Order: sequence, then structure tokens, then C-alpha cells
Amino acid sequence: MSRLPTPQVEPPATGLRRYRAIVAYDGAPFSGFAVNPGRVTVAGQLNGALSKITGRAIDVVCAGRTDAGVHAWGQVISFDARPGLVPGRVQHSLNRMLGPAIAVRGFEVVANDFDARFSARSRTYRYRILNSVGPNPFLHPTTWHIRDRLDVDMMNEAGQDLVGEHDFSSFCRAKQIRFAGVEIEADLTRAIHSISWSRGDDDMVEHWITARAFCHQMVRSITGTLVEIGLGKRPRNSLGATVAARDRNLAGILAPPQGLTLWDVGYA
Amino acid sequence: MSRLPTPQVEPPATGLRRYRAIVAYDGAPFSGFAVNPGRVTVAGQLNGALSKITGRAIDVVCAGRTDAGVHAWGQVISFDARPGLVPGRVQHSLNRMLGPAIAVRGFEVVANDFDARFSARSRTYRYRILNSVGPNPFLHPTTWHIRDRLDVDMMNEAGQDLVGEHDFSSFCRAKQIRFAGVEIEADLTRAIHSISWSRGDDDMVEHWITARAFCHQMVRSITGTLVEIGLGKRPRNSLGATVAARDRNLAGILAPPQGLTLWDVGYA
Repeated sequence: MSRLPTPQVEPPATGLRRYRAIVAYDGAPFSGFAVNPGRVTVAGQLNGALSKITGRAIDVVCAGRTDAGVHAWGQVISFDARPGLVPGRVQHSLNRMLGPAIAVRGFEVVANDFDARFSARSRTYRYRILNSVGPNPFLHPTTWHIRDRLDVDMMNEAGQDLVGEHDFSSFCRAKQIRFAGVEIEADLTRAIHSISWSRGDDDMVEHWITARAFCHQMVRSITGTLVEIGLGKRPRNSLGATVAARDRNLAGILAPPQGLTLWDVGYA
Repeated sequence: MSRLPTPQVEPPATGLRRYRAIVAYDGAPFSGFAVNPGRVTVAGQLNGALSKITGRAIDVVCAGRTDAGVHAWGQVISFDARPGLVPGRVQHSLNRMLGPAIAVRGFEVVANDFDARFSARSRTYRYRILNSVGPNPFLHPTTWHIRDRLDVDMMNEAGQDLVGEHDFSSFCRAKQIRFAGVEIEADLTRAIHSISWSRGDDDMVEHWITARAFCHQMVRSITGTLVEIGLGKRPRNSLGATVAARDRNLAGILAPPQGLTLWDVGYA
């Protein structure tokens, strides 16, 4: 584990301007956000459409690299292109080219030091569980269906043990990064700002979680672990020990991707 | 046009009982409700699963034969099978076999004179329009996206001209039926109980329409015609004349199927 210096945001190359877009997408048809040769990905679709519109090869930066099947309502991307793009017109063209699974909800010129990833101060995810005996064809694409009754109050209470800065190695896929010429384990310390679980109408259970940043699979792993607590399969006060162990094998199951949505990214 | 006698409901064959189920489905993956050889249909899926469970060839009767792409929340079916089927168990088996696009929401034994089609006293459909400048990937599967602002109050007012018993030939696909050995035009007289249009949150416009029964494409044709009124493309007081003309060419466009859901069937 090692702390890396905060990366400096590179300004646009001479003669280019920086743009930002807010993007919603249904994750089902995509092999995740990030470009992946031979696969249909959200970034691949966005890069293709933006390259056609701007006449320049575009490679977007995003706030959160969502996995295959994970949705977004407020994904943020940034990229550089020639000055003078008319936001409303580009947004409309993108929506015509990208729909129906991807929608561009906002588009604007931003300052040269803005970076969708490094400027972000918080990411908020929503995880939805349909907690009902019977299935629902209309909610199936965006929920995890769990038949047994969840103790949502207990999950909400247990989740508070995760709030704050911790090494989340128990809840994240380990990652090797190259730093100063050697392979090292990426630092999986993250700061969770808030976690809440609540039951709404129609047997819908919602989990909202906000952090400065998340590591890979962290929200789905936390969700799955808290579900095991809510089903009585894991002690309610066990999360502190699970975090402290820094052992991926001690976390619960990985919640399925279709319940998860990257809801909002904060830059304030 | 000719009034036919109300059909008598046939009781189950000796040794069989009649059952009823409430079925929800996402219409997208199906070529409509009705069995259609070589196509995947809702009835085809239901018949296949019920035949496996009951050990007998089942051919379900439904309350409303929805078209390709049209959804249902409260479709009702009836069929005959051996006595003693345990409702909760059959429902659970069906959901395991049919999901995720079809869900059985209820299952019960009913009286011998019940028929999902002929016993129905009312059908209620919901049509949803996303009336926003931008598209929404999560609402796309269940709404018609219209960018220009609809005058919903005017549509609601205009729609009241259709309430009551009328010959809806202007709004229905003509149908030849065989009666007493000759081909005749089916009677397209129907009684609409209520029509309402309202705007909710998030640019969502909802159309609720209830009738004793509907003829083919009637809800989508009425919806499309009222949308033309709401966009100012058709006079607000024109519907009386459109009905009186009994001319399919005078109605507006056919609203696309994905906005339509068979919501409820009344038997009281």
C-alpha cells in the first residue's frame, strides 16, 4: 500500500478547449464504461460519436468507470475539442447518434483545469433491491430481486461502521499499479461520506452511498455484505472486524450489477 | 356492422377445474400476446410452462390480446387443468420458468363459469409519454418520447368527446369475422367509461382509459390522435366528427406500442 501524489490536471493542447457532459445510460447492453477493444462500451460509443461531430479523435475521461451492466444517471465526462462547439447542438446530435441506451443530459464548456476524474470531490451511487416475494418484469432491469425480508434498519445501522476513512481491501478487487518503475499494490484507502438504507413503497429498498472515490467493486461488495447482515446470515456488528482484516475473502457476496447506478458526481 | 350474441362460457371438461392468473409482462421481447407459430409470444410461453407443470396441453384465454411490444401489469388469463393444483406452488414454479420478462402476480381456483375474456366487465390501459426535450434511457422502454410540449389540459378536455358508446371504426383496424357461414365486418361499437390525461412529475404525461372492451389498436389510435390535438396539429373540437365519419384515414398517427400497458381488468 502506498500513497501516490495527486495527479496534476493537464490543460488542453494549444488551440483546443475543454468540454464536459453529463451522461445517463442503461448499462445492460454495454461491456462497462471503459474502452475495451472488440466490445461495445459506453466510452467507445461516446468517443465514436464525438469524433464524428468534432472531426478529431476523442478519448473521454470519466468520473467513474462503471462495470459491465452498471447504470449511470449522472456520469460526468470531459474531453478536448476545437473551440466554438455549440452545446445545445452537440447535445442534440449526440442524443440522435447514441440513443436509446445512452442520453446526454447536459453539455458545456469548462475551465482548462477541469478533469471529470481528478476534479471530482464526491461520487454518489444508488443500489436498489426489490424485496418482494414475486418478481417484477419492469423493475428487473434496475434492481436485485431478494425474496426474503431484509432488516433494513439493521443494515442502515451496521453500515455506519464503514463511514469515514478506511483501508477497504476487504471490499475491493486488488489492483497492481506501476509506480516509479515497479509494480506495487494500489492503495485501497477511501473515505466514505455517508451510507443510508431505507425502505420505500412497493417493497423497494434503496441504498445510497457517497464517497470521495470508490475502488473497484466496492459498492457492490459493501451492498452484498450488508444484505447478508439484513438476512441474519452475518453478525450485525461484524463490519469493523471485516474492514480491519483487509481480506477480500471475508466480505459478503458481490451484489449483481443491474441494481447499481452512478447517480451523481460532485465538484463543489 | 352487426351485433353478435354474447357467447356462452363453456365449463371445464369433466374432471377438470378452472384456474385464473394475473400476469405482468414486459412486451419488448414478445411478438404480442396471442400464439403465433414460429414467434415467441406471451401465450406461447405461458402455455408451454403450464403444460409442463400440469402434464396436459394448456391453451390459455386472456382478457386482452396485447400487440407486439405492448406491456401488461394486470393481464388476466384462465385455463382448465386437473383439480388440486396448489396456487402458491404453481405461481412460484411459473415465475422460475418464465422470468424475467413475465411474472405471475396471482393465481387461484375460480368458478366453472369464469372466463378471462367473456367475464371481463372493464379493461383499463395506461399510456405514458415522456414529454421532455432530452431522452431518458430508463424510461425509453415504457414511454413514447415527445420533445414538443403537449397541452395536456386540452387533450383531457378533447378526450371527453369519446366517452360513451360509439362506433369506433375511425380508431380501429377493421376485422372480418365469420358468422353464420359468411364473412362480415366485425362490429366496432365500444363503450368507453373514462379517459383522463394528466401531467405528473419529471415531464411524465399519463393517459388512463377504461372501457368495457377495446377493438384492435383502439387505445394507440386514440392516444396518437389526442397527441396531435395536444401539439396543435388538429382542432380541439374535432373528435366528434372523426368518430362520426367512421373512416380510419381520419384518425391521427398510431402511438408506438412501448408506451402502452394493460393495467387492470375488472370482473365485478
